[in-house]
Amino acid sequence: MPLVRISHRAGVTDAYRRALSDGVQEALATAMKVPADDRFHILTEHATGLIFDSHYLGIERTPEWVAIQITLRKGRTVEMKQALYRRIVENLAKDPGLRSEDVMISLMENDLADWSFGKGEAQYVR
Amino acid sequence: MPLVRISHRAGVTDAYRRALSDGVQEALATAMKVPADDRFHILTEHATGLIFDSHYLGIERTPEWVAIQITLRKGRTVEMKQALYRRIVENLAKDPGLRSEDVMISLMENDLADWSFGKGEAQYVR
Amino acid sequence: MPLVRISHRAGVTDAYRRALSDGVQEALATAMKVPADDRFHILTEHATGLIFDSHYLGIERTPEWVAIQITLRKGRTVEMKQALYRRIVENLAKDPGLRSEDVMISLMENDLADWSFGKGEAQYVR
Repeated sequence: MPLVRISHRAGVTDAYRRALSDGVQEALATAMKVPADDRFHILTEHATGLIFDSHYLGIERTPEWVAIQITLRKGRTVEMKQALYRRIVENLAKDPGLRSEDVMISLMENDLADWSFGKGEAQYVR
Repeated sequence: MPLVRISHRAGVTDAYRRALSDGVQEALATAMKVPADDRFHILTEHATGLIFDSHYLGIERTPEWVAIQITLRKGRTVEMKQALYRRIVENLAKDPGLRSEDVMISLMENDLADWSFGKGEAQYVR
Repeated sequence: MPLVRISHRAGVTDAYRRALSDGVQEALATAMKVPADDRFHILTEHATGLIFDSHYLGIERTPEWVAIQITLRKGRTVEMKQALYRRIVENLAKDPGLRSEDVMISLMENDLADWSFGKGEAQYVR
């Protein structure tokens, strides 16, 4: 169910992109029990369009900075969200090798009726 | 009012893009009484950035897969949302000829004060 | 904290893009007390993907039309949102010289726990 938007710098390889996607998906499974095959990611590369502060909150960011916006249904606890953030940066540190300071994450919550996974049906509505 | 983001594969024609936009707009009008001229769509093509599962929930997806994210004000019923999903896939099946399995839709709701349509005014606030 | 997505036409200069970003950021600081260094903007250019109505609500829009979607934590008043809209169009009129009719703004609200600014931590959770 999560719809994941990942915005990254231009000039990366397909393997780099795949690692971003894999790392986020594994973290969703581990921290939030999202099924492994519930994967819907939209990655966008930006040659000049990422404009961010390099020091906000004392965190030093580099041009490798990645923004991850995840839309998911309501109901996850604060603890689950914290576990998700930790796991995402752990995964992305291993591959594609991102510094944890370069990973920004923002969540948006909606309702079960707000999802259709195909066929024009609202699969989560009973 | 809806702000519609449509993410599709690269290599499509302007007519294809226009059909995606028209199909979603007609469905919003039919299922939710959105005025025909209340149209604000952002379409993005992705050469390599759409990473999705081809089988989740038993729905077979192809590389034609399209993700539609619609931001709209709170207040639509579950039935209206279900009618919207049905109508979007009906429309997109006719033109540009998408399989219903290849259409994912996700909604996000906000408030009337969260919209400015120009001139720096919040037109829906009285 | 705000995550700002700005969608604009193709063919603009880096200075134009920078002015869009600066104008929004200054308005967030002035209208909502967002720290100047709390800046996280994602700009995307669209050669053919902006499909919008040129007259909705009697507002005349041109191909310079820009869509600004801002995700921020809950809690701002209607008056603060109205001040934000006014200030954004004032700023963008000065630089890069946008007509106020060509600026659409939409807000999305979430919770403090929905943000991680790096290091895998939820910095706004105490």
